[in-house]
Amino acid sequence: MSKVTPISGFPEFLPSDRIVEQHFLDVIRETFELHGFASIETRAVEPVERLSNQGEDADKEIYAVRRLGAPADEKSDLGLHFDLTVPFARYVLENAGKLAFPFRRYQIQKVWRGERPQEGRYREFAQADIDIVGDGTLPFHYEVELPLVIADAFSKLPIPPFRIQVNNRQIPEGFYRGLGIEDVASVLRIVDKLDKIGADKITQLLTAENGPALSAETAKQVLRLAEISSTDASFVEQVRALGVQHEILDEGLERLAAIMTAANEHAPGLLVADLKIARGLDYYTGTVYETQLIGHESYGSICSGGRYDSLASDGKTTYPGVGISIGVSRLITRLFSQGLVKGSRSTPTAVLVALNNEDERADAMRTAIALRARGIPVEVAPAAAKFGKQIKFADRRGIPFVWFSTENGAEVKDIRSGEQVVADPATWTPPAHDVRPSIETPQLETPQENS
Amino acid sequence: MSKVTPISGFPEFLPSDRIVEQHFLDVIRETFELHGFASIETRAVEPVERLSNQGEDADKEIYAVRRLGAPADEKSDLGLHFDLTVPFARYVLENAGKLAFPFRRYQIQKVWRGERPQEGRYREFAQADIDIVGDGTLPFHYEVELPLVIADAFSKLPIPPFRIQVNNRQIPEGFYRGLGIEDVASVLRIVDKLDKIGADKITQLLTAENGPALSAETAKQVLRLAEISSTDASFVEQVRALGVQHEILDEGLERLAAIMTAANEHAPGLLVADLKIARGLDYYTGTVYETQLIGHESYGSICSGGRYDSLASDGKTTYPGVGISIGVSRLITRLFSQGLVKGSRSTPTAVLVALNNEDERADAMRTAIALRARGIPVEVAPAAAKFGKQIKFADRRGIPFVWFSTENGAEVKDIRSGEQVVADPATWTPPAHDVRPSIETPQLETPQENS
Repeated sequence: MSKVTPISGFPEFLPSDRIVEQHFLDVIRETFELHGFASIETRAVEPVERLSNQGEDADKEIYAVRRLGAPADEKSDLGLHFDLTVPFARYVLENAGKLAFPFRRYQIQKVWRGERPQEGRYREFAQADIDIVGDGTLPFHYEVELPLVIADAFSKLPIPPFRIQVNNRQIPEGFYRGLGIEDVASVLRIVDKLDKIGADKITQLLTAENGPALSAETAKQVLRLAEISSTDASFVEQVRALGVQHEILDEGLERLAAIMTAANEHAPGLLVADLKIARGLDYYTGTVYETQLIGHESYGSICSGGRYDSLASDGKTTYPGVGISIGVSRLITRLFSQGLVKGSRSTPTAVLVALNNEDERADAMRTAIALRARGIPVEVAPAAAKFGKQIKFADRRGIPFVWFSTENGAEVKDIRSGEQVVADPATWTPPAHDVRPSIETPQLETPQENS
Repeated sequence: MSKVTPISGFPEFLPSDRIVEQHFLDVIRETFELHGFASIETRAVEPVERLSNQGEDADKEIYAVRRLGAPADEKSDLGLHFDLTVPFARYVLENAGKLAFPFRRYQIQKVWRGERPQEGRYREFAQADIDIVGDGTLPFHYEVELPLVIADAFSKLPIPPFRIQVNNRQIPEGFYRGLGIEDVASVLRIVDKLDKIGADKITQLLTAENGPALSAETAKQVLRLAEISSTDASFVEQVRALGVQHEILDEGLERLAAIMTAANEHAPGLLVADLKIARGLDYYTGTVYETQLIGHESYGSICSGGRYDSLASDGKTTYPGVGISIGVSRLITRLFSQGLVKGSRSTPTAVLVALNNEDERADAMRTAIALRARGIPVEVAPAAAKFGKQIKFADRRGIPFVWFSTENGAEVKDIRSGEQVVADPATWTPPAHDVRPSIETPQLETPQENS
């Protein structure tokens, strides 16, 4: 057997970090459910042909899956899903007759991409998606609603301030068409690199003879559009001031303005209309979203999505959708690497029941049962060791309370303060914040005393 | 694109069944945490060589995983895990320096096995495992504790009565050695088929010249042992009455008796000492568990495990463990197929806020926010359609309440009873059992009225 080593790109957490991840997943799930999204899970595998052709580099990043016992010439035609949108679109087609539309679902699962691992880019990672899909049509107002759901979830999580950047692909498309540009997709792809390579380089690429070959003035206009952003609907005036006219542009501006106006009514300043946002995946057709943590802009988006009008179609009916996906692994590994969050202990246990001798185990189990019946996580000491050793057992795990049976009856010690009180397993309760592990934000709080 | 069809062995649930699955997973998780088990998740993949050689048919059932973009001659050396015990053992070795022992963990994840799909046997399925691992040694009392944790979880779930069958592999091993049998493993493997093929066939196999070639009297003794079972420690006398002596047998009997005695103190009748239980996986070395739903015995075990003393070893230190795994997918698909459980609705939503016209959407969203702030799942109607259509929208999903704004202010209608009352979004609350979807057990309850 080879030595045990981590596999690059497949992160695993120690228990105290997993407690943080669980807290994030619980808050996200709870928020999604409060907004009426139903949970589904899809299988990990899809036919490879369904996974293919969703974006330029996606194909070679797909993990193919094949039984070791399969005949050598049997083609492997299944692959692990690389996102949750493509499987969801397939699920909708497969179950259309049994679902009620518009169908709101959330999905929290692992996905796999064979790309080169680096900070925030993993080969296995968790995503938390919400999508709303209609049959035939999908009202526009859902494009306003989704980022508000995300904002609601994020407002309950211990994360840095964030901004959700919104655009509508119709804006650059209509604007480019109004400028007489024909190869809209190539120009979009170049502009998408603005943050990475800067305006000068973008101008070179846009005007290059072997590229879109735009005139200097047209390229300037393209850049002017990409540089527009606003936290309200005032971006419309800025675009109008550029003097370009096209009906697709008008529609895109109207829709993005409606999103900004509605969002500002419910969550002022949360959304930024940012006209350079495009998204890499090919299936988006209208509104697109990205999300930055303020102060961590170079890390890229931690929550993205958009509207897709033709991803799910069975030839007869089309199921247009809009969705947004929280990159849960991306988000929390950033918080861990920056020391922004940690779990208060490495176990759910709030109380360790100590033993004077092994004969007390049955009694100790009864004490544990009585405490658990009132929702208090408890374990019994592994052995009737010296008290110092049993307290050390609790301390190493961050278990705050140790329960003793003494000549005077049961007593419980807060091992942080040393305070010890008489206690009845039928009634004693730890302070509410000690019942479950909590999430600490070391850079925001005064460090807790820990004796 | 080929037609969308299910993939055999990869079950997916509709939203109302997923609500049942989530309830089961929540209860299991909550129980595991109350007993002080810390959550971990391991990556989906392990090196194939670590997955291999854990049981006779396991190898060819492993799914190998390989990037589509990998060079054609690159060996695929990763596979999807087929259980959660082997990855856990690897995790313990990898993180031994950072874990506190004995380490109690739970793990709820999908696993994959490329076996022939049939009812209750899937290629992708969810398991919920608890294990306790020590460094160097592991106290015996954990073998008593684990089935009590499972019983605690099951007692909170809407499932048929169940029995946990326990054995200790030392009992047949010591007994066989006491009889002078040398090839203990072969005899165990034959006896393991007793329920399937019956005593006569077992006798033939045991006495066959090209098999263990036992004498008729020895084979009879082997069968007598396998037929012993009791709900207390009285199995010991039954074994003693067979007159076989061996120190390994003595140790096995003592341990199993201790489990039965302790279990009967906390949960009388829950455990059955059943001396034919052996388990297929090779890594078990002592106590083994299986669990039957009473009335569904032919379905096989829905929760199994045991003690493994040498699965995790780095050459210097051995980490003995004991674990038990709930076959969550196996369990709930049985309940579904027998019509024993269903979700009360197909969405978390408890209240649909109806619209008189689209201009009311902002107000409706404020109503929704006010209700959600008090933990009530709400969605706003997709469109200002006729009221009948909006009520039908709620009815199709099982949403119990529809919120209207009328000339007299806000009112809320229970669409099952038709009752409609004046309501304030800041204070109105649905009955507690309507806030979240509930799990119905159609064969146990009077059917609910549903207008």
